[in-house]
Amino acid sequence: MADEEWNLYEAGCPTRDVLDRIGDRWTVLLVLTLADGPLRYSELGARVQGISQKMLTQTLRGLERDGLATRRVFAQVPPRVEYELTDLGRTLLVPLGAIAGWATGHMGRVRAAREAFDAG
Amino acid sequence: MADEEWNLYEAGCPTRDVLDRIGDRWTVLLVLTLADGPLRYSELGARVQGISQKMLTQTLRGLERDGLATRRVFAQVPPRVEYELTDLGRTLLVPLGAIAGWATGHMGRVRAAREAFDAG
Repeated sequence: MADEEWNLYEAGCPTRDVLDRIGDRWTVLLVLTLADGPLRYSELGARVQGISQKMLTQTLRGLERDGLATRRVFAQVPPRVEYELTDLGRTLLVPLGAIAGWATGHMGRVRAAREAFDAG
Repeated sequence: MADEEWNLYEAGCPTRDVLDRIGDRWTVLLVLTLADGPLRYSELGARVQGISQKMLTQTLRGLERDGLATRRVFAQVPPRVEYELTDLGRTLLVPLGAIAGWATGHMGRVRAAREAFDAG
């Protein structure tokens, strides 16, 4: 099946699953955090504030499985584990940066709309 | 709080909730389906194949509450209900189009990566 044949509007199309994963808040934040180069597991956890260990581990494993990031273990004591975006992962920086930018750039308008809706 | 002060990396920042909503598969598909103009509830359900009535109603209500779409009821028998993107909603077309395009454009590479990962 060539890439051109995928159709997000079709029930059961596997692209919907990919869309879920890349649209997930933790995926967005972790990919963008890795924009400037490799980071350790603990650094990622510190920068993406409030992420649980479970979600951090699970999201990084998903990125690895989808070919978006690589995991490298350095044999030292204590072992150092680093994550880095792959070339495929880097192609997400522009679209995910755009949705993250939308969220912060339009928060005020969204909030005002909600208040008006809830008051009506 | 000015828009510039929002920080997605901060735990509890309300922009994370907005990010969740705009990154949601049904939001992406419904917003893009509304790109060319207003549509009826039943047309939206038919174009976004596989969406349940519950998710369609819930997602449209979320779009309305966030100021991204308007709902118009025409007094006729049977009543006609149409949804249309607002100006704010239209600003999502580019970023959401980009992530939808990424999903369909890179599905082959993601699938190949998964197969390699699962085999390893």
